[in-house]
Amino acid sequence: MVNVGIVGSTGRVGTLLIDDLALDQEAKLSACHVFDKLTKSVPEGTVVTNSMKELLNSCDVVIDFSAPTATQSLLEEVIENGGKPLVIATTGFNKHQQNLLIEASKIVPILYATNMSLGVAVLNKLVALASKALREFDCEIVEQHHRYKVDSPSGTALTLAENAAKARDLDLDAVRVSGRDGEIGARTKDEIGVMSLRGGDIVGRHTVGLYNDGEFIELNHTATSRNTFSKGAIKASKWLVNQEPGLYSINDCLGL
Amino acid sequence: MVNVGIVGSTGRVGTLLIDDLALDQEAKLSACHVFDKLTKSVPEGTVVTNSMKELLNSCDVVIDFSAPTATQSLLEEVIENGGKPLVIATTGFNKHQQNLLIEASKIVPILYATNMSLGVAVLNKLVALASKALREFDCEIVEQHHRYKVDSPSGTALTLAENAAKARDLDLDAVRVSGRDGEIGARTKDEIGVMSLRGGDIVGRHTVGLYNDGEFIELNHTATSRNTFSKGAIKASKWLVNQEPGLYSINDCLGL
Amino acid sequence: MVNVGIVGSTGRVGTLLIDDLALDQEAKLSACHVFDKLTKSVPEGTVVTNSMKELLNSCDVVIDFSAPTATQSLLEEVIENGGKPLVIATTGFNKHQQNLLIEASKIVPILYATNMSLGVAVLNKLVALASKALREFDCEIVEQHHRYKVDSPSGTALTLAENAAKARDLDLDAVRVSGRDGEIGARTKDEIGVMSLRGGDIVGRHTVGLYNDGEFIELNHTATSRNTFSKGAIKASKWLVNQEPGLYSINDCLGL
Amino acid sequence: MVNVGIVGSTGRVGTLLIDDLALDQEAKLSACHVFDKLTKSVPEGTVVTNSMKELLNSCDVVIDFSAPTATQSLLEEVIENGGKPLVIATTGFNKHQQNLLIEASKIVPILYATNMSLGVAVLNKLVALASKALREFDCEIVEQHHRYKVDSPSGTALTLAENAAKARDLDLDAVRVSGRDGEIGARTKDEIGVMSLRGGDIVGRHTVGLYNDGEFIELNHTATSRNTFSKGAIKASKWLVNQEPGLYSINDCLGL
Repeated sequence: MVNVGIVGSTGRVGTLLIDDLALDQEAKLSACHVFDKLTKSVPEGTVVTNSMKELLNSCDVVIDFSAPTATQSLLEEVIENGGKPLVIATTGFNKHQQNLLIEASKIVPILYATNMSLGVAVLNKLVALASKALREFDCEIVEQHHRYKVDSPSGTALTLAENAAKARDLDLDAVRVSGRDGEIGARTKDEIGVMSLRGGDIVGRHTVGLYNDGEFIELNHTATSRNTFSKGAIKASKWLVNQEPGLYSINDCLGL
Repeated sequence: MVNVGIVGSTGRVGTLLIDDLALDQEAKLSACHVFDKLTKSVPEGTVVTNSMKELLNSCDVVIDFSAPTATQSLLEEVIENGGKPLVIATTGFNKHQQNLLIEASKIVPILYATNMSLGVAVLNKLVALASKALREFDCEIVEQHHRYKVDSPSGTALTLAENAAKARDLDLDAVRVSGRDGEIGARTKDEIGVMSLRGGDIVGRHTVGLYNDGEFIELNHTATSRNTFSKGAIKASKWLVNQEPGLYSINDCLGL
Repeated sequence: MVNVGIVGSTGRVGTLLIDDLALDQEAKLSACHVFDKLTKSVPEGTVVTNSMKELLNSCDVVIDFSAPTATQSLLEEVIENGGKPLVIATTGFNKHQQNLLIEASKIVPILYATNMSLGVAVLNKLVALASKALREFDCEIVEQHHRYKVDSPSGTALTLAENAAKARDLDLDAVRVSGRDGEIGARTKDEIGVMSLRGGDIVGRHTVGLYNDGEFIELNHTATSRNTFSKGAIKASKWLVNQEPGLYSINDCLGL
Repeated sequence: MVNVGIVGSTGRVGTLLIDDLALDQEAKLSACHVFDKLTKSVPEGTVVTNSMKELLNSCDVVIDFSAPTATQSLLEEVIENGGKPLVIATTGFNKHQQNLLIEASKIVPILYATNMSLGVAVLNKLVALASKALREFDCEIVEQHHRYKVDSPSGTALTLAENAAKARDLDLDAVRVSGRDGEIGARTKDEIGVMSLRGGDIVGRHTVGLYNDGEFIELNHTATSRNTFSKGAIKASKWLVNQEPGLYSINDCLGL
């Protein structure tokens, strides 16, 4: 039985993790990190703490769906005092936080994925393949999430865009466009539009389009339930406890 | 037989107008305004001129798919010296040009439409109805055009957004969002996203989405051929020659 | 406080009704009809019965998301011995069962809707309007539901198709096509394709398309959560208790 | 300069071939097979014939966008008297005709493809990959074409379905479903729906969907112009003249 500690246990996916771990045969909840207090009841004996150190001491593996500052604390604790394998799904890191992630992965195995779903992992592979084979097609990405999402574009959209760009030897930062307004002129060959829609309770929709004269391709992934993410993270956590230190992707876990 | 003069006769729709007028039973090409020279052959006897005055003197009605500066010359000529009925499909006017349009419409009948297709006219009605009935749904619009389009969003998308906003007593300028990037926070209730995609040879795709908890609606129009616009404009021109001075919409012509 | 009795209380929407009634301020669960036993716990004091008569005696209004045979028993009981207002969302009735519905509506108010969502009610209005205004466009409908749905097409798709057909003075039974395979020849002008897709856990997607030379329109509704249906039915039940006997639609309740 | 003979020269793509060959730098039209007479003017010196033998004698390579009976005549001529490389895009062959194709490919190089577009070739690869990686997802395919198409489903849809089935070791004939109507029960695990929509002037839209609990993927290809097919076939013909006898796919030509 794998003992799982949660960072971000009051968040949207965090609360689902509590439910899904309760039903799992091979993993169970052992600890929750909270800043204030839990919004959901947890099994008796679960450690509830605002200390990253205590969390790490009370589990075999951590699953983190939180915000950049919380993840930063987690990573700093691991770098200073060692830790446990980390499954991290937080998005919106700055450069410093990205460096901490790499540093910590020399000490413990870290699986970092902006999206824990099997379908998105497959979509990333398809996008890389299609973006390369259809080099002359214009690439545009649209992502959509619920009205409460605070960051744009989604981490998943950025990962898809990076895969599309890398397949063409482009630097995403140099070619990404996130809005179009006014007399902006014709589209440049290499630009990659990444447009964000917000509304309703949309769990997550991502479409990568490739457009040319006479034809186009659109590759879409739609998440219909957030359990896709919590179940994917639990699956990843069971795999990660047996790995060596290093930085892993969801593809490593799925054998894609 | 209605004699049609074209402004923008070297443009994408302008060249189609020349073909479609050649096939029409009730209208024919009589004059073309050009800045330089025609890219397409025209019937013998067609007046080809760089003078708006000569164009107006050589036709019963003008169809204008050009750019704001050319349309401005046309309107100024009408205001100064009188003119003929005008079917105008140019987009991207500034405030001054909009005022000229209104002024000229006191002298001649003007049908102004950012999109000459029947389907878009119907979509505008549906959007107004749905936006009002589903007042609490978040509204987001996506438009897509070919890689050479220079202005964003399309005039059609702005007209759709205006209809959606008006149905909720909102001022589009105050609520329109044309890009999302960074930690921008949760969606505000009234904002209307109008996102522009560019790529390939897409003639025109517009989707108006209305999103709420538990459900959403998406209303799409796709133009598969630019002849939709040229044929719509010819139909409008035949109707407009019999109208009194005033500013008309495509709905007036279609009886919607 | 409106006392609600449920027929179909072990079904997908029936179980959600139990949850949503527990949270409602103006309505509460008072009785459940079951053939076998409940799969969900209900508040103390709730009448659980396999008798339609007892159910009707234990509530102010019935909500029925069941199967045609169960609804038939309910209607027969009302016709023989009188009853209570009925909100019915069951689909797949045969001719006899449709007649029972009409007969019963002379005795009690009945709101019959194949879909209880606000969005679908609005979509039905849009479809009627567009189908009429775009009379010469070819009409095709696609619906998609989860892999466990046993009847095809969905009741909602049939209602949409009926609205599209009626707007063109067509009889749906004469023009509906539910599959295409082999050398079937060109499309006939009036046919209305209604195609069913099944897969995954899709709650409900319906797209009505109108296609012509040069352009097309696609009107889509997507349900992202079944609570859309249970909440809509509860809203309808509160309205229906104050109505006279008769057959009502969701539009009557929503004032569309 | 490659001399091209056309079978099906009065068809939708056949007439485009005449135009596109006129513009090509490395290939030109040398012969047309017709049953009756040409609908389009051809360059002086072009052989116009109703004899397959004469056609084959008047070109370096044949491009065939016709119907099964015409292609059968072409194949029989090649088998009896030898011939030239053949690019064949005809769909709807019966078993006997499929066998003739294989027999003829021992005599001349034949490239057979139900769709000549680059995008569809790539889509086929993506579908095979995704269908295998997402083995437990339900697979459903929707194709849409203009109102005049006489066979359903499209050859392209069948090829996509075959790729999806093969990736799961399934026999398409055993699992394909082309319509759903009535109380047909829950979806079976292996079935692959292939639904055909018809309407307007749609050149070709194909969507392969993979649906599971919590998420789904939809992979779409849209042809916006039939020149995609004629240009693809001309490209294929230039490649095929240099190949050994054998049966080739579009992937061989594109190096996918």
